[in-house]
Amino acid sequence: MPGKTTKVDMEKIVSLCKRRGFIFPSSEIYGGLGSCWDYGQLGVELKRNVKDAWWRAVVQQRDDVVGIDASIMMHPQAWIASGHVEGFSDPLVECKVCHLRWRADELNGNSCPDCSGELTEPRLFNLMFKTFMGPVEDDASVVYLRPETAQGIFVNFDNVLTTSRKKLPFGIAQMGKSFRNEITTGNFIFRTREFEQMEIEYFVKQGSDEEWFNYWVKERFNWYLNLGIKRDNLRLREHGEEELAHYAKRCCDIDYFFPMGWAELEGIANRGDFDLIQHAKYSGKSLAYFDEGVGESYVPYVIEPSAGVDRSVLAFLIDAYDEELAEGEIRVVLRLHPQLAPIKVAILPLSRNEKLVPLAREVYSKLRSYFMTQYDDAQSIGRRYRRQDEIGTPFCVTIDFQSLEDNQVTIRERDSMSQIRLPIEEMVETLQDKLSGESFATQPLWTAKAVDALEE
Amino acid sequence: MPGKTTKVDMEKIVSLCKRRGFIFPSSEIYGGLGSCWDYGQLGVELKRNVKDAWWRAVVQQRDDVVGIDASIMMHPQAWIASGHVEGFSDPLVECKVCHLRWRADELNGNSCPDCSGELTEPRLFNLMFKTFMGPVEDDASVVYLRPETAQGIFVNFDNVLTTSRKKLPFGIAQMGKSFRNEITTGNFIFRTREFEQMEIEYFVKQGSDEEWFNYWVKERFNWYLNLGIKRDNLRLREHGEEELAHYAKRCCDIDYFFPMGWAELEGIANRGDFDLIQHAKYSGKSLAYFDEGVGESYVPYVIEPSAGVDRSVLAFLIDAYDEELAEGEIRVVLRLHPQLAPIKVAILPLSRNEKLVPLAREVYSKLRSYFMTQYDDAQSIGRRYRRQDEIGTPFCVTIDFQSLEDNQVTIRERDSMSQIRLPIEEMVETLQDKLSGESFATQPLWTAKAVDALEE
Repeated sequence: MPGKTTKVDMEKIVSLCKRRGFIFPSSEIYGGLGSCWDYGQLGVELKRNVKDAWWRAVVQQRDDVVGIDASIMMHPQAWIASGHVEGFSDPLVECKVCHLRWRADELNGNSCPDCSGELTEPRLFNLMFKTFMGPVEDDASVVYLRPETAQGIFVNFDNVLTTSRKKLPFGIAQMGKSFRNEITTGNFIFRTREFEQMEIEYFVKQGSDEEWFNYWVKERFNWYLNLGIKRDNLRLREHGEEELAHYAKRCCDIDYFFPMGWAELEGIANRGDFDLIQHAKYSGKSLAYFDEGVGESYVPYVIEPSAGVDRSVLAFLIDAYDEELAEGEIRVVLRLHPQLAPIKVAILPLSRNEKLVPLAREVYSKLRSYFMTQYDDAQSIGRRYRRQDEIGTPFCVTIDFQSLEDNQVTIRERDSMSQIRLPIEEMVETLQDKLSGESFATQPLWTAKAVDALEE
Repeated sequence: MPGKTTKVDMEKIVSLCKRRGFIFPSSEIYGGLGSCWDYGQLGVELKRNVKDAWWRAVVQQRDDVVGIDASIMMHPQAWIASGHVEGFSDPLVECKVCHLRWRADELNGNSCPDCSGELTEPRLFNLMFKTFMGPVEDDASVVYLRPETAQGIFVNFDNVLTTSRKKLPFGIAQMGKSFRNEITTGNFIFRTREFEQMEIEYFVKQGSDEEWFNYWVKERFNWYLNLGIKRDNLRLREHGEEELAHYAKRCCDIDYFFPMGWAELEGIANRGDFDLIQHAKYSGKSLAYFDEGVGESYVPYVIEPSAGVDRSVLAFLIDAYDEELAEGEIRVVLRLHPQLAPIKVAILPLSRNEKLVPLAREVYSKLRSYFMTQYDDAQSIGRRYRRQDEIGTPFCVTIDFQSLEDNQVTIRERDSMSQIRLPIEEMVETLQDKLSGESFATQPLWTAKAVDALEE
C-alpha cells in the first residue's frame, strides 16, 4: 500500500523497540554507552532476516557474485593505500566555554549551538579507531578497526578471482561490523560508532561501468521495494560534483524518509580503478585482470553498492509501523514483510485448559522446525493477537476445543485480521505458501532504464 | 563412519583452504597480519552454515532460549565488574637476546625456546584490546573490545527477562566477534586474536544447576555428533580443581582431536551466580529473578556452553577430509554434513554444446532459489566431479544429450559416487529430501545420563 504511511516519530519507535525486545541501549544498567545499541530477542531475528534477504539476493540468487568475510583488523598499510590514514577525518571544534565538541562542517554559525560560547579553530580528527596488537603500545603495533568493509574485499580481490575462476563482470559481497569514531552520532541506530555494513564491489571493464552503475542503482532500489518499503518513502539522490570523493566518477544515494527527514540508506558509487591501483602500488602486487576474450590485461573499474544494516533495520521498522482503529481501539501493527518478520507464526491455545495444551504443544513443536515460532498462552486471545500484531507476526494459529474434535486449527492473518480454518496436516504447507510473500500486496518495481532519468 | 579417519596434517588443510577459496591469510598482499584470517567465497558459506545450525538448534528449535546481538564495545565498567580489567592477563616474558615474547606459563625451562637467551622477569599483560572513544585519548575515553560475548548477555539479562516474559530456566544465546591480544597464537584458525564465539548463558535456580550442567554437556556433545564429527575424535575433559576459575563450580571441555593434538572446541561451565552478582553490585541495579512459583526472589545460577566458531569450522573441515583410491587415482573428498556444505548442488552440463546450455541454465536457475548452487562447465566431467568432491558438494546434477529428449537428469552423490536418473520436475523435492541429512549415515548419539560417567 504505497503512500499510506502512519506518521510516526522516532520516540515511538525507540519506545516500541525497548518495550518489546527489539533494541536496547547498550550496557543500559551502567547508563549506556555513547550511541551503542544492543539487539534484543526480536531485533536479532529482524536483523538476521534483513542480512539473509540481502545475501540471498546478491549472492545465492546470482551467478556473478560470491561472498567473503574478512577480518575487522587489517594490515595497517591497507589503510594508508586506501587513503584513510591521510584523509578519513572530520573538522573538529570545541566550545571554549562548555567544552562540547562539534563537527565544524555541520555548524552554520561560529558559536556553540548549545551555549553560544566561542569555538576553537577546527582541527582534523581521524575517524578510525586505533588499538595496539601485541604487548607494546608503539607506532609499530598500531592497528585500526576497519571503518568500512570494502577494503577487505579489495585486498582479497586476487585471491578470490584466482580461486573462484570467475570472469568479469563479477562481484564480491561482504557483510560485517565497521567502526567510526564519529564526533556526532544520533537518531537511534541511524548513526552509531559501531555499525554493520552490507557491501558489494562489482568489478567491470572500463567503458561498461556507466551501464553497470545504472543496473545496480535499479537493482538495489528494487530490493527495498520488494521487501515492502513504500515507494513514496524512497528516493534517489545524485551527488553533485562538489560532493563526490576525488576518486569517484559518480555516486547516487538511495534515501529513506526517516522521521528526521530524508537520509541515506545506501550509496552506489562508481569508484573507477582507484582502489585496485592504490593497493597494487602499495603492496607491489599486480591486481590486473587478464581478459581472455580480448587478450589483454587491465585494472577493472568498480561499482560499489554500500548499504547500512542498522539503518535498513530502522527503515523497515518505521515503514512497517501502523496504527489503525480496530474494534473500538487503536491497533498498533508492524506490517513487516513476512521474510523479515522476527516471528513467523504464533501458536495460541484458546486457554491453558489441560485438554488443549497437549495439542497446542504438538502443533508448536511441529511448526518450529520450519519457522521461527512463539508459543503464547498468557492472557486473553485478543490481548495475544495485539501483542503479535505489535511485533509483526504475520500469522497466528489458534487451537480451540473444536480442534480436539475435528483436528483443525484457525489461522489468523495479521494485516487483514481475516481467519481461515484448516486441517492440521495442511498447516505447514499453507503457511509456507503464505510466508513466501507472494500473497502479500506487492508494488510495481522501478523500471527506469537509466538513472539519468533521476526522480526527486 | 566413526573411527574411519584419514590422517591429515594441518598443512594439507591450510593448503586446501587457500587453493579452493575457503580461508586466506588476512591482508595477504601486504604480507598478512599476525594470526588474522579471511574467509573466502567457500569459507564464508561454511561458517554461515555452522552458525545457522547452532542458532537453529539452540534458539529456533527451543522454547526456553532466545537470542540477542550486543555491541562489541561495552561500557568500561562492565569489564571492571566482570573481573577482566583486574585479572584477564597472561604472564609475559621477553628474551633479552632476540626480544621474542613468550607466555611464561607455557615455557618449561627458563631460557628462550628460540635462541636459548635469558628471559626477563614475567609481568602481567592484560589481553583486552583497548581503544579510545571520542577525540581525546585519555583514561576517561578508554573502551575495550570485548574479550568474550558472555558479558553482553549478563548486562542485558534484565531487559530480556522483562520484555520476553520468560520464566526460569531460560537461556540467552549470542554469536559474534571477540578480541584477545594473545601473546602466542597459531595452529591456523584455532587461536587467533580476532575470533567468533557462540555462547549461551542458561539461567537456572540454584540446586538444579548440576542437573542442567549435565544436560548441556550432553546436548552440546551431540550437536557435534549430529553434524557428522566422528565419535572417536571427540572427548570430554573435566577441569581439575586447580584449573577452575575462582568463581566456577565446575567446567567441562568438549575437545577435538586436531592434528596438533586434543584441544578445546567448547567449554561448558557452571558459573554459579558470580556474574549477575558482580554486575548488580557495580551497576546498583537488582538482577534478581522473582520466582512466582515459590514466591521468592533469587539471583539465578548460570550454565554457560561457550563454543568457538572458527575452531568449529576447522574441526568440521579436518574431520570431513578424506582421501581414497578411486578409479586408479587419489580422490580427495570433504565429507561435510549436507547442512554444512558450502555448495549443496553443482550443475554440470556434459559440455558447452549450444543445445545443452539452455537446459542446463534453466535447471541452474530453478535450483538456486532453493539451494546454494554452482554452475560449472569447465574441463571434463571427471575433473568437475573431483573439484566438487574436494569442496564437499553433496550432489552434482549432470545434464546430457539424453536430457534434451527425456527431460531427465543424473544426480551423482558425493560419498558413494552412485548415480540416479530422474525427471527434472522431481529434482527439487528429491534433493530437499536428500539434503535434509536423514539419508546420511548417522552415528549413535551420546546418551550418558550424568557427566560423572566421564569418558576419556
